[in-house]
Amino acid sequence: MAVYTHLTAGEIAQFIARFDVGALRSAKGIAEGVSNSNWLIETERDGAAHRFILTVFEARTDAADLPFFLSLLDHLASKGQPVPRTIHTRDDANMTLVRGKPAALIEFLPGVSIDDPDEAQAHAVGVALADLHLATRDFTQTRQTSLGIPTCVGMVRDHAERLGEVDPALPDILPDCGASLLESWPEGLPGGTIHADLFPDNVLFVGEQVTGLIDFYFACTGLLAFDLAVTHAAWSFTATGNDFRPSIGRALLAGYESRRPLTQEERQALPILAQGACLRFVATRVEDWFATPADGLVRRKNPMQFAQRLAFYRDRGEAAFQS
Amino acid sequence: MAVYTHLTAGEIAQFIARFDVGALRSAKGIAEGVSNSNWLIETERDGAAHRFILTVFEARTDAADLPFFLSLLDHLASKGQPVPRTIHTRDDANMTLVRGKPAALIEFLPGVSIDDPDEAQAHAVGVALADLHLATRDFTQTRQTSLGIPTCVGMVRDHAERLGEVDPALPDILPDCGASLLESWPEGLPGGTIHADLFPDNVLFVGEQVTGLIDFYFACTGLLAFDLAVTHAAWSFTATGNDFRPSIGRALLAGYESRRPLTQEERQALPILAQGACLRFVATRVEDWFATPADGLVRRKNPMQFAQRLAFYRDRGEAAFQS
Repeated sequence: MAVYTHLTAGEIAQFIARFDVGALRSAKGIAEGVSNSNWLIETERDGAAHRFILTVFEARTDAADLPFFLSLLDHLASKGQPVPRTIHTRDDANMTLVRGKPAALIEFLPGVSIDDPDEAQAHAVGVALADLHLATRDFTQTRQTSLGIPTCVGMVRDHAERLGEVDPALPDILPDCGASLLESWPEGLPGGTIHADLFPDNVLFVGEQVTGLIDFYFACTGLLAFDLAVTHAAWSFTATGNDFRPSIGRALLAGYESRRPLTQEERQALPILAQGACLRFVATRVEDWFATPADGLVRRKNPMQFAQRLAFYRDRGEAAFQS
Repeated sequence: MAVYTHLTAGEIAQFIARFDVGALRSAKGIAEGVSNSNWLIETERDGAAHRFILTVFEARTDAADLPFFLSLLDHLASKGQPVPRTIHTRDDANMTLVRGKPAALIEFLPGVSIDDPDEAQAHAVGVALADLHLATRDFTQTRQTSLGIPTCVGMVRDHAERLGEVDPALPDILPDCGASLLESWPEGLPGGTIHADLFPDNVLFVGEQVTGLIDFYFACTGLLAFDLAVTHAAWSFTATGNDFRPSIGRALLAGYESRRPLTQEERQALPILAQGACLRFVATRVEDWFATPADGLVRRKNPMQFAQRLAFYRDRGEAAFQS
């Protein structure tokens, strides 16, 4: 949640000149995304204002993955999904370099992120996620996640001796660093292109309508029901107190199934998939916790939030996913 | 340079509803200002988009000073100066509370900040600063600065024993913590309302035209030539290398004097005023250096940048201010 790369007005103007989008009128560094640097750009052409997001991809995003991410946006946009389309340069490239770092100009979408969703909004998110899964059935590019469950177990295990420094309860929740999930991990479930990070931050609303799904920089090829489990774990708990909100979880599932009914196997797997989803966020947060320089610009997120949700799904997941 | 207060979309929508500005369409936390939290807001009314800056004033800004700052904006805007006007609530207040903190909605101005000004831009800044001084001659409110030179000397002195921790050269530049400036500080120069912080960050340009003067939250009643000295110290050195740029300094002065010629006494005082201006930024940066928690969101600015400029003005200030 910070601007990492500092660009001068001149550098931004030079970047914008590569696109047929008019003259630069404003550029504001925005506190959006934790991995990249973002600016809200305004240009003027023929007397009309146009807005874009300029993203400079920092080290955490592998440049080799960008063609996948950006092609996915264009694929979804062409199918009418509420995602920002990429703006192509005058040479028809959807990616270019700034200060030697990959950068892209993408469409600005209206809408605000919801911290405290109501049932209608949770239902709308479920619908949007299922539509995303359906709209990518003919998207042929693939990307393997770098955050598979075995990797996440290893990430937690790397800090096994120090988990208690984060919180005394953390080693009790994850005595095996999550390894038991590997034994019960489902096989043979339907796969496809998944967002894999559909937190409230990454969904824009105007009222009850989803106007934008953003930040596809963890998107990959994976289990569709895992994406639903990630979204369930990200949306269905109170921001303060971390309490499960059954009505929100139900609305999310109902919205999803209104477009893409789950198979019997997917539904049965949801409790274990949700635990895996939580482990994925525990793992990166544990790693960040010990890796973030104490004077860093990034505020560390506490791994306990998703460790507690993991414990919830382990203890009460079956009930949570009953219709 | 960070969002300090986290507001939910619901809180922002409730805030916006106090104003007759249409419905909330977008809110992005922006990395602007070091002391307050800012959002770029977009609303829609009658099919047209409108943009504003929402500022939540954090502890560093004294709430008792806000009526001065906000009235000053309205005074300057009414005189056609390029400053954002404040938006008044339906109850005609230019200030309201969010989460118990004072907050204001102000006009969004187009333009970008220049890191590396050319002579025409430096001239334009000089013109804009003089126009600001002329336009406030009939502004009757006053505010005493909390960062007068005696205070700044005291702030540096509070850390006298530890200045060498910042940089071994710092105690050599300021052996007396700046106290000698008090002996030669000029008296009887023309006073008025000054911006007191007109850094490149706080001036918006479209091309060579100044489209916005922003961030008036250090504005106060003071010496007009001190404001010019602050601006000179902030604009006339290279960002990398910290080298004096004579042509930029000359253009700034020429622009200023094209609207408000300096008196003989003011011109003679510029070298000492410029040293005082530098001391003011050394003082706050020294204080921040030792006060900023190591895990803070704020990147500390190195006091050495302005210590070196202070030394420059002490050694070569007379030559620097010759026409």
